[in-house]
Amino acid sequence: MHNFEIIFVNDSFSRSGILKTRRGEVKTPTFMPDGTRGVVKSLTAEQVKSVGIDIVLANTYHLHLMPGEAVVKKLGGVHGFGKWQGPILTDSGGFQVFSLSKLRKITEEGVTFKHPVTGEMRQITPEKSIQIQLELGADMIVAFDHLTGLDEKSRDKTREAFDRTHRWLERCVTEFKRLTKDMKAADRPLLFGVVQGGLDLDLRKKSLALVQASGVDGIAIGGLSVGETQEEMFKVLEALAPHYDPNRPHFLLGVGTPSDLRFAFEHGIDMADCVLPTRNARHATVWGENDEIMHLTNAKYIEDTLPIQEGCDCYACANGYSRGFLRHQFKVGEPLAGSLASIHNLRYLQRIAESYRK
Amino acid sequence: MHNFEIIFVNDSFSRSGILKTRRGEVKTPTFMPDGTRGVVKSLTAEQVKSVGIDIVLANTYHLHLMPGEAVVKKLGGVHGFGKWQGPILTDSGGFQVFSLSKLRKITEEGVTFKHPVTGEMRQITPEKSIQIQLELGADMIVAFDHLTGLDEKSRDKTREAFDRTHRWLERCVTEFKRLTKDMKAADRPLLFGVVQGGLDLDLRKKSLALVQASGVDGIAIGGLSVGETQEEMFKVLEALAPHYDPNRPHFLLGVGTPSDLRFAFEHGIDMADCVLPTRNARHATVWGENDEIMHLTNAKYIEDTLPIQEGCDCYACANGYSRGFLRHQFKVGEPLAGSLASIHNLRYLQRIAESYRK
Repeated sequence: MHNFEIIFVNDSFSRSGILKTRRGEVKTPTFMPDGTRGVVKSLTAEQVKSVGIDIVLANTYHLHLMPGEAVVKKLGGVHGFGKWQGPILTDSGGFQVFSLSKLRKITEEGVTFKHPVTGEMRQITPEKSIQIQLELGADMIVAFDHLTGLDEKSRDKTREAFDRTHRWLERCVTEFKRLTKDMKAADRPLLFGVVQGGLDLDLRKKSLALVQASGVDGIAIGGLSVGETQEEMFKVLEALAPHYDPNRPHFLLGVGTPSDLRFAFEHGIDMADCVLPTRNARHATVWGENDEIMHLTNAKYIEDTLPIQEGCDCYACANGYSRGFLRHQFKVGEPLAGSLASIHNLRYLQRIAESYRK
Repeated sequence: MHNFEIIFVNDSFSRSGILKTRRGEVKTPTFMPDGTRGVVKSLTAEQVKSVGIDIVLANTYHLHLMPGEAVVKKLGGVHGFGKWQGPILTDSGGFQVFSLSKLRKITEEGVTFKHPVTGEMRQITPEKSIQIQLELGADMIVAFDHLTGLDEKSRDKTREAFDRTHRWLERCVTEFKRLTKDMKAADRPLLFGVVQGGLDLDLRKKSLALVQASGVDGIAIGGLSVGETQEEMFKVLEALAPHYDPNRPHFLLGVGTPSDLRFAFEHGIDMADCVLPTRNARHATVWGENDEIMHLTNAKYIEDTLPIQEGCDCYACANGYSRGFLRHQFKVGEPLAGSLASIHNLRYLQRIAESYRK
């Protein structure tokens, strides 16, 4: 368990470190862009690198369905596939199975759902999730969990999902050990367990203790940013902050906004991922000075010669692509506008992460 | 008329040179990508540069309609707008007015047509075209011509368009001189006149003589690649080849395929532009070895680990983005696939151009 080196802990829970993976080091805290289908949408690996990013996330659910992990493996694994040569983390597919798939049926064995294109029934079990992620060739993988909180908030349901998540975690750990037992320590991917428990702070703390006792390499916090208020999310992060094992990396799944990230980094979180910066960017929504949410299609930007944010060092701002130019290109549907805005939004979040490093 | 320096003329009509513009030199022969709305679709200026391109084309018709030349000027002109810092050539808008606009009415004064978005009536005259192009800030501009050959091929119509093209050329030259009379020679954009005459070789030769007599800086060949066979186009290029003023650059408008370009470069053409490489690329169609037309969405590429073309030095091929990867990303609508394929197709044509240089 020496994959994480803490460089600095300040007087709050905020800390700065280096996470060591088989494909290089990750400076933390960090923001990880979502490369849903194996690439960060509309960006080359070189452009992602230019943002100052060390690690990207890929989605197990999407890659499993299309083109399938066997095809990705033949094309060189997630690294050979999308040409991102740094560390890649895959999620478990759990979130997508619960949020995107139709006709899903949850049993103790796993989740059965309908393939959105072919219509055939598929099942992802904890073992299957681990198998897919190792087949994809990720450097960090996540245990398959039972997500709650999307539509049901009853205590019974939360408790049921909580218990299942931990039974599934055991199965994930067992399967992971089985499949990686012949690997040298330096070649082994890192496994993250997922903390659930909805908004119930006691369940959350119990879940954290169970995950930490399971022997995983890293701690992931799931089930947040799924419809609750920011205040509710912050209460969970606050409650967990004093209880993390400091020697392992703490990963907040699916978060978030600039203010979410600041709060998270100030409460012991080392890494976070979210589709928000790139999805917003493709819809012409970017962050400006002081987290201002700018809609670049607004008519007020027609003749605006300023970059998105003065002083920003991203490729778009540093090269002076103007708001007026971007407005026009968004209006005419030019994909370059989304790429440039994505670069800016990712850099915006990465600068927040960098501000907490030593 | 010392803007063009010929380095080499071989025993056919093929030649290699350097075209000097106020914004730098252009090595010829060259292929110019179309930056219809001020940028080469889905590519940053840096990515275009990586292809080995010296000069890009922007479309007067599109930029005039949206966002308008006054807005482009306020945003820094075409160079400040799209951040391409090398030479930019604008076309006259003539081709688009004839091919894209609805309700167009042609009089001796100019062409009246309906704005495709606002529905208001607009008029482009020869003078207006020159004014727009200078306002946009292009380094090379093209005289407004009357295009024939899109739907009518009668000799009378061709003759009428031919005569009007030359009357309009005179008006363009007059307006150009009026608007640039206070510019130093080194700051003045270059003006190209357009040779028309359909498939009538006599008219074509007369048109070339008239354009060359008008005192323009460069010779553009218009009205080709508009529906005629390749054989018909080649006959025109062959007929014109012995008659070009060798001291001026020869620009073939809207062409073309790899074989079109080879034939053109072997018959005295120095520069050509076309939307084909980038438009095809966005639809997953790329050139492979020996001009093979590859449709990357084809199922045979699912597990193909090869780059588009082995040995190609474009960003996509040199970095090993596989056909299988590209197929998948095209299938799921990922814009990066179109960007990478665009880079390859542009590089494919630029390598043809480079093969004729000394």
